[in-house]
Amino acid sequence: MSINQVADFLLSRDNFEILTHAYPDGDTLGSGYGLCLALQQLGKNARVITTNLPKDFVFLTEGVKEQSFEAQTIVSVDVADEKLLGSNFEKYHGKIELCVDHHRINRVEADIKLVEPEAAANCEILYRLFGVMNVEITRQIANCLYTGVSTDTGCFKYGNTTSTTMRIAADLLDTGIDAALINKVMFDTKTKLKIRLEQEIYGTIDYFANDRGAIIAVTREMQKRLGVGDDELEGLASIPRQIEGVLIGITMREKEDGVFKVSVRTDRSVNAAEYCAMFGGGGHAEAAGCTVKGTLDEAKAQLKKAAEGVL
Amino acid sequence: MSINQVADFLLSRDNFEILTHAYPDGDTLGSGYGLCLALQQLGKNARVITTNLPKDFVFLTEGVKEQSFEAQTIVSVDVADEKLLGSNFEKYHGKIELCVDHHRINRVEADIKLVEPEAAANCEILYRLFGVMNVEITRQIANCLYTGVSTDTGCFKYGNTTSTTMRIAADLLDTGIDAALINKVMFDTKTKLKIRLEQEIYGTIDYFANDRGAIIAVTREMQKRLGVGDDELEGLASIPRQIEGVLIGITMREKEDGVFKVSVRTDRSVNAAEYCAMFGGGGHAEAAGCTVKGTLDEAKAQLKKAAEGVL
Repeated sequence: MSINQVADFLLSRDNFEILTHAYPDGDTLGSGYGLCLALQQLGKNARVITTNLPKDFVFLTEGVKEQSFEAQTIVSVDVADEKLLGSNFEKYHGKIELCVDHHRINRVEADIKLVEPEAAANCEILYRLFGVMNVEITRQIANCLYTGVSTDTGCFKYGNTTSTTMRIAADLLDTGIDAALINKVMFDTKTKLKIRLEQEIYGTIDYFANDRGAIIAVTREMQKRLGVGDDELEGLASIPRQIEGVLIGITMREKEDGVFKVSVRTDRSVNAAEYCAMFGGGGHAEAAGCTVKGTLDEAKAQLKKAAEGVL
Repeated sequence: MSINQVADFLLSRDNFEILTHAYPDGDTLGSGYGLCLALQQLGKNARVITTNLPKDFVFLTEGVKEQSFEAQTIVSVDVADEKLLGSNFEKYHGKIELCVDHHRINRVEADIKLVEPEAAANCEILYRLFGVMNVEITRQIANCLYTGVSTDTGCFKYGNTTSTTMRIAADLLDTGIDAALINKVMFDTKTKLKIRLEQEIYGTIDYFANDRGAIIAVTREMQKRLGVGDDELEGLASIPRQIEGVLIGITMREKEDGVFKVSVRTDRSVNAAEYCAMFGGGGHAEAAGCTVKGTLDEAKAQLKKAAEGVL
């Protein structure tokens, strides 16, 4: 569906519920609240449906009016698969009319789909859509869209960042938003507990294959001992891969006794998706995941052996 | 001097030596090698003069021709004060004809000065200058300018980033440079030793004033024991300030027995420059420095007491 047709669809409808994915991040929430603000600006009723709203993202709801209405139009943003609606799956699956997304593989069954995998962030698509719909990009809308674009590109650091991404961010900065504050909250803030956890993890980095591989592991015992919640585990996967010379960085996280969730980050010379496929997992060329069973030592030994094979 | 006049000056001259500041960073080196490539593209002789070239920046020299000539025109880039030429001060002070810089206070005595403090990076000024001079922005020149813009803005994260910064970066991306690789080297690579040092430092964070202040210290004993060179100490100052709730983050580094170099990073609610002025130092509102004498405990006590006064 073309962006103009999607704009026409939105302009012709009312009473929107906008669905975000579970474990919501900056891009799904920025998309959701940005679209909500845009629709309300056009005189329509709209609300965002999310499983939860982490406190760092509460500022995105600024200016959103609480409206009482019966939902008529269901839109999903940044949702690649209805299963990712989490606790909202039961209520909404099969009811999405419009799906706006940027994931390469999108499995949402919707009447109207606007899926653009070349967009670094879903918020980029919404920015262009708002242009077609003549939405005024207020500072509040810009806060939402900037947050999505910035978080999905690691603050314009990753390879998905294009010149279009940068120009959209430039337009958003021109509204006068405090991007530095947003970025500080998103990228430069750690809790005391997170610092404590990183200290512990740094002490247990397991280098192998002449330091071309590195594994870190977070056990349930460690989490319990340090009092670390799941929130603090965000972003750990980037630690082993950041180390100079490491081509494959593996992060193990004990889910329940004998089950480890594994995140793999690789240099371009090693395919992370192919590596994870050996364990029944998958993902992207430089970032993938899988699940491994066994004790910590057994699971680690399996992961190392396979890694030595691909290095 | 207007940018057109500076362009005319460069076009009318030849045999350039381009001076960078000591402890060279991405912006001074990106400016230096970018300008050198541009001048060589225009058929002129040029070379970069730097105190040293850290290995991460060697890629900036790609495509630079080694030319043999007698220097006639001395240009400084990103140099706020001739003293900052370091070991090149003796040879070059008083000889700079053109100074291109973006520091708010520039003390270089040069015939021609192009100083634009609103530019986030000196490389921004050069990008616009190259436009006036009809320099073709090759991929090699774009590598240089992007490195300067990216490093001086913390990858577009800090408050100095403007929409102009973003649009210039967009134009540079359009040349096809591998910005993700540059950013990985600049921002996402740590040595094993650095990890080891951070682990040690995390264990010694000293919180005070109800966790609104945090101090870390690197002693000579610690450096010696871990085998950590001065290179590994880069970027440590951001650690204490990153902790949630910390308004003043203080990093102490023992230079010689009884002398500590202190870096201070603050929230907007606390003025770092005013704080450091109490110890005879200075700097910016959110990043400043000073020197404190005494044993570690004495110096720390002084710094804490003063911090408690301003919190």
